[in-house]
Parts: sequence; C-alpha cells; structure tokens
Amino acid sequence: MSTPLRLGIAGLGTVGVGTVRIIQRQAALLTARTGRDITISAVSARSRDKDRGVRLGDYAWEDDAVALATRDDVDVFVELIGGDEGPAKAAVEAAIGAGKHVVTANKALLAMHGQALAEAAEAAGVALRYEAAVAGGIPVIKALTEGLAGNEITRVMGVMNGTCNYILTRMQSAGLDYDTVFKECEELGYLEADPTLDVGGIDAGHKLAILAAIAFGTRVDYDALTIEGIERITIEDIEQAADMGYRIKLLGVAQNSGRGFEARMTPCLVPESSPLGQLEGPTNMVVLEGDSVGQIVLRGAGAGEGPTASAVMADVCDIARGLDLPVFGVPASSLKTVQASTQDTPSAYYLRMELFDKPGALARIASVMGESGISIDRMRQYGHSSERAPVLIVTHKTSKDALDAAIAAMPATGVLASDPVALRIETL
Amino acid sequence: MSTPLRLGIAGLGTVGVGTVRIIQRQAALLTARTGRDITISAVSARSRDKDRGVRLGDYAWEDDAVALATRDDVDVFVELIGGDEGPAKAAVEAAIGAGKHVVTANKALLAMHGQALAEAAEAAGVALRYEAAVAGGIPVIKALTEGLAGNEITRVMGVMNGTCNYILTRMQSAGLDYDTVFKECEELGYLEADPTLDVGGIDAGHKLAILAAIAFGTRVDYDALTIEGIERITIEDIEQAADMGYRIKLLGVAQNSGRGFEARMTPCLVPESSPLGQLEGPTNMVVLEGDSVGQIVLRGAGAGEGPTASAVMADVCDIARGLDLPVFGVPASSLKTVQASTQDTPSAYYLRMELFDKPGALARIASVMGESGISIDRMRQYGHSSERAPVLIVTHKTSKDALDAAIAAMPATGVLASDPVALRIETL
Repeated sequence: MSTPLRLGIAGLGTVGVGTVRIIQRQAALLTARTGRDITISAVSARSRDKDRGVRLGDYAWEDDAVALATRDDVDVFVELIGGDEGPAKAAVEAAIGAGKHVVTANKALLAMHGQALAEAAEAAGVALRYEAAVAGGIPVIKALTEGLAGNEITRVMGVMNGTCNYILTRMQSAGLDYDTVFKECEELGYLEADPTLDVGGIDAGHKLAILAAIAFGTRVDYDALTIEGIERITIEDIEQAADMGYRIKLLGVAQNSGRGFEARMTPCLVPESSPLGQLEGPTNMVVLEGDSVGQIVLRGAGAGEGPTASAVMADVCDIARGLDLPVFGVPASSLKTVQASTQDTPSAYYLRMELFDKPGALARIASVMGESGISIDRMRQYGHSSERAPVLIVTHKTSKDALDAAIAAMPATGVLASDPVALRIETL
Repeated sequence: MSTPLRLGIAGLGTVGVGTVRIIQRQAALLTARTGRDITISAVSARSRDKDRGVRLGDYAWEDDAVALATRDDVDVFVELIGGDEGPAKAAVEAAIGAGKHVVTANKALLAMHGQALAEAAEAAGVALRYEAAVAGGIPVIKALTEGLAGNEITRVMGVMNGTCNYILTRMQSAGLDYDTVFKECEELGYLEADPTLDVGGIDAGHKLAILAAIAFGTRVDYDALTIEGIERITIEDIEQAADMGYRIKLLGVAQNSGRGFEARMTPCLVPESSPLGQLEGPTNMVVLEGDSVGQIVLRGAGAGEGPTASAVMADVCDIARGLDLPVFGVPASSLKTVQASTQDTPSAYYLRMELFDKPGALARIASVMGESGISIDRMRQYGHSSERAPVLIVTHKTSKDALDAAIAAMPATGVLASDPVALRIETL
C-alpha cells in the first residue's frame, strides 16, 4: 500500500460538500480501486461557521485558498470556488507553483486561462484535471482525450447547459413563453447569480471552448466562438419548429472543416427523433464524432452535487492511480493557434419574422432572399389578429454570409415589422 | 521522444485490418497524443495470400499467433483472432508469459478465462486491456473503471448485440415476423457463423459478464448469468408491447441488490420514450448507474471495422502513454466470488399465451395467477380467427418465483393452448 493521497478542498458549496461526502462514504472503495487511502487534510471556504450538513471537524481550516493550496500536507489542490479571476485563479496558480496536482470544476478559469495554466502545470510536472468542468458527471474529457485517442475528431456537439434545456423543454411541454419560464427558474434557484451566464450561452460556451481545444489540438480560445443565448426564442418558434419535426436546443457545435475552425454555441433546430432532439429537462448530452468511431453519444446529469462530485473524484482517482497525460491530451506547447474559419459550413436555416399585412409583402421578402442566392424550402404565414403577419421560412442549404446579406437587405423592403430571428438547422 | 511502441497484430479480419489502417493513416496524430511512435512489427492470420485491401508488406509475417506473441520486437500483442479457446487463448497466455502487454477484442475469452488471465497479467506486470470487447467503439470499460471510479455502481444495463437490436427494430418497423428477418440477416451476412451466439444472447452475455465484474468487484462469472435469446419473440409481442407504450429489447441488466448479485441477458420491455426504448438498428447502448453520478447513458456503434479498431487503439494509446490500472479496476486477487441472488428483484411482467376459446378460460388463468399471489394490471384477449384466443397479461410487480409457480400451474387448467411467453418489464 502506498502513502495516502492528501487533498485540500477549496470551496464548500454544493460540489465541495458532495466531494467530501464521497470521500467519507466510499473510503474503502476508493482505496480498493486506487491502492491508496484518499484523505482530506484541509478545507477552505468563505464562511467557517455555516452548517453544511457534513462533518468537517477532522480537517484543518484555512480562510485563504492560496494558503490551503500551498500547505505541506496537501498533495492535490481541489478548486471548487469558481470564477475565472480572483481567489480561484490565484490559488490554482499557487498550487501549481508549489508542485501540487490540481483538480478543478472551473470551466470559466479553463476557458479563459487554460493555455497558461496547462503550460505551467506541464512545466511543473503536475496534473491539472477538469472532468467536472464540462457536462457534470459525464466522463466526456476522458472519453475524448483517452477513449477516442485513436480518432481524428471531426465534430463535437453538445447540450451542456441544463438550465437552458430545462427552459426550452418546459416552454414546449407547458406552452409557456420564455419570460414566464425564466421567472419560474429564478424562483426555483435554477439560475446563476448572473443569469446571462446560463441563458446567454456563456457557461455552455466555456465548456465548448474546452472540448474544442482537446478535439482539435488547438489552444483554448473562447473568443473564437460565436455565442448566442436563448433569450430571443419564443413559444412560437418552439411550436413552429415542433410542427416541422424539430426541437430547439442551445447547441454547441465545433468542427474543423476544410474552411478552418468553426465553433458556435447557439440555439439550433435539431430533428426531434435524434438523441439531441429527444433530450428533455436539465440533462446534458455530448456527441463526439471521429473518423474511425463514427458517432458516440454521452448523456447524463450536467450539474448537481453527486454528478459533479463524481467527476471531481474521477480525476482524484486518476491522480491516485498515477494515470496522467497532458492537460489537453497533447503537450500544451504543441497546441496550435485557432485559425477561425472565415465562413460557417453551409446549412439550412429557420427564419421567423413579422411582416406588415399588405399585398406583396411575402413576395418582397422572397425576392430579397433570391437576390442573395438563397433558395426557399418552405414558407408559411400563420394565424394573426392584427396588421402584423407572422411569417416562417425554412431555407435550403445556404452560406451564413448569404443569409446575413438577405437579412440586412430586408428592412429596405418596407414590409418588415420585426427583426428576423434566424436559427441554424443542424444536421446530425 | 521515447522509443516506439511496437505491436504484433494477430488476426486480420475486419477489426485487424481496421487497426492497421488507423496506425497507417493517423501515425502523426498518435505520436502527438502519446509521445511515442506506434509501429507494427509483425502480423499473423490464417491466410497469408488473401488481399485485405491494406498494405502489409512492411511487417514481418508469422503463421503462428504464439510465435508472434513472443517475438522480441513486439511490446504489445494485439489479439483479434476471437474464440475462447484455441490459438487466441494460447497466444494471449504466451504473450503474458513473455512479458508483453495484451490488447484484445475477445469477449468470449475474457468472459470464460478473465480471472486467470487477469491474475497472470498482474503477476507479470503487464497490461491486459479489452475496451473493444464490449460495445464496440463506446469507451465503456474506461467510463466504468476510471470515469465513474468515485461511484458505488448500483446497476449496469445495456443493449450490446447490434444484430439482435436490428432484428427487433426491423420486425417492428416492417411488421415482419422473426423468421423472415432472421433470413434477411443471414443473407446480409449480419450473423455470426453460429447464429446462436447472436440471437441466443450468448455474445451479449459475455459482454455483460465482463461489465458486471468491473461494476461490482466480482470475478467474471458467465455461468452466474441468466441468458435468454430473442428466438421466441413474435411480431405479436412487439406489436402488443408497442400498443402499451413499450419496446422489446435484448437487454442486459446486472445489479448488486440486497438480495445478492443478479445478472440477466433477456428480452425485456422498456418504455418507448426511454433512451433504451428509442434505440433503433444495430446501435449499442450502455446505461451505468452510480450512487453519486446517477444515470449515465453511452451510445454508439457496437461493431464494425472503424468503431472496434477505435477501441483497440484507445487501449494501445493508454499503454503508450503509460496509463495502467488493474485489469478489472481492482487487483484480480481481490475480486470477490459472485454470490448469486436466490431471487430476482421483483418486477412487472408481460405474459403472452394462447387459450382454447371456451367459456371461463380467462378466468381460470386469472385464478391461477391469483393463487400465486400475482395481481394483474392489464389483461386483454385480442383478435383471433380459430378456436385459439391469444391473451396478453401485464402483471403488477411480482417475484420471479411467484411467476414461475403460476406458469407451472397453468397447464393443469386445461385451457392453455400454447406455452406462455413471459418478459420482464424493466424499470429505467
């Protein structure tokens, strides 16, 4: 039996408490599996006195995460504070500087500072692991870096923000509008303190940026992503999409096509019969596509105490077992700079707008689209009670540039009563 | 850069050729990811002269797999011969004896001799890896041993024979009977040389035995499984199940309940809206449930050149990276002997039978069931054109013992015109 692996856990929110619980409850199992006792030396959090429903008396207390990260009796620093700056960043840097392994659930930190942290960790010869940062309990980082290591990854997709998927499926099942469901979520405590992180697609974008780096061997580059939230999705969009056999998802897609690197976290239409289309509630799903393996779909809880702590412990067990590989699967120094595509892969699009109800309105819009070289698959005007007519258009495959040109030309027609909403129809 | 990792590949069927192709096509990528060149020293197969559509001239040829396994220029012996005895077993044993790592896709070998081989490999200090043996390209062995290492696994389920799932979904979609679809599969070359391996549930049973050992820390024990094939499933079963909102799947379930170890590979009813219910065609799906992570679902191609070779290469890459852990996740010597449950977890059951069309027939069957303490949820007699009336019964939750008792008592009623078919309704 080797020496124990001693943890210092910073952050005792949901995930921190969950991690402590697993270590206490499954001590024998963890030792059997890793060949070492896994122990906690010290913890740190903002408030020492809060009752967290878990026994903490055996562990030393640090008020300061940096002090925790550099303690002599800590082998692995577990960062569960969150945020891409401040104490989380300072403590992770301090831990690496002090030669400690790091396990973190912090997607924002990795998305913004992943390259520098990975280089520092690899130079120091310590692990920097983050299974819990992406898709909660789903072991997707391991699947991508190890399970599909023999594949050239062609595309990564995913629904990776449970709150957004909950909102969209709740709108659909209850026929409620966005604002109503958003308020429900606020009341239920489902939203981040800054809800834009969820509904604006930022949190999910951080996750996609991390997956894309691993998938394509590029530096993490959050700024190279196109991010769009779900705030503009109406119950009409959801119902019209359903009527055509689609579901609307906040879907991340990253691919490295002949055109260069493309990564988007945007609301998309997906076929209702596809695994992504069938995903309901707060569950996450990641789709990995490789040249040999074809398509692998992983599904599970994307958040919550147990699932996220499970992912933290997977990393801790790997470290205890001595399993280590470069942070993003290849040495950080060899990661290439992202060459963003100048053009998205062509796609069919769904377009919704309101037109003033006057003769020839629809024809004018159709004509503007034709001038941009866009051919229309379906077009419908649906029930209305005022002088504004809601109109829905599904295009054939077209470039995003052509679509943007058409949308830019629409106001000049004089028939447009609302800004068009355009959603990509993703091929699965 | 470390020294190259040199492979000897035995068996040049679909998977062997797929493995050679990945190594040739993705050489640079594999080196970037593992830090080592991955090369092939030698290959072996039954026929040297066959054109396999892949360049083999650079590799030494061995007629004998054992000779290949023990070559000085082989670091990893890749066994893709198949079969639980004969050259596959002899060569794997020889490789371990010669201190070579082993990667295999051979589920039968692991299911029948996993314990002895794991002990030998661990004693010799070599890896014995088998990601490709279960669910093709889905990295399920890694998910279970590493990704969910922090969990006590509570249940493992899966659809792990693509041919059976193809047959069942094809029967449903085309309304064809079992024999017709079976013949189609024979003509398409979808079946093993001995089709019982597929439709009898044996191949899928081998896979479940392996997963169960990892999940519950027990010795692989194929004989402790209840195995039942899909041969008795009729188009009526499929249509009646669909009518009640279920799909029929050849489903593996292993759980370690308070009653002891239970593992079955049997046709079951699952809700059509569940991920398992929605699985169509030859795709595989594995469901892993843990005390912390909840439910994780993995889906992908369960067979075929690319997917299976992808799994072989995941193991090869792990070895190249120096990632190793005990064969079944904990040292083989610590694996416990299976304590098979004396009783299955209670469940609802679907029962189909034919009764002679005479007054009181249904009442007699209902009465026999009541005497065994089984309460009936639904009962229906459906369209018939002769003196035999097909009858369908769905029970409330009951023990398997009570069900077996009721079925044993049915012939004495004198109204039974065909043996009852009983299928478990699995809760997801």
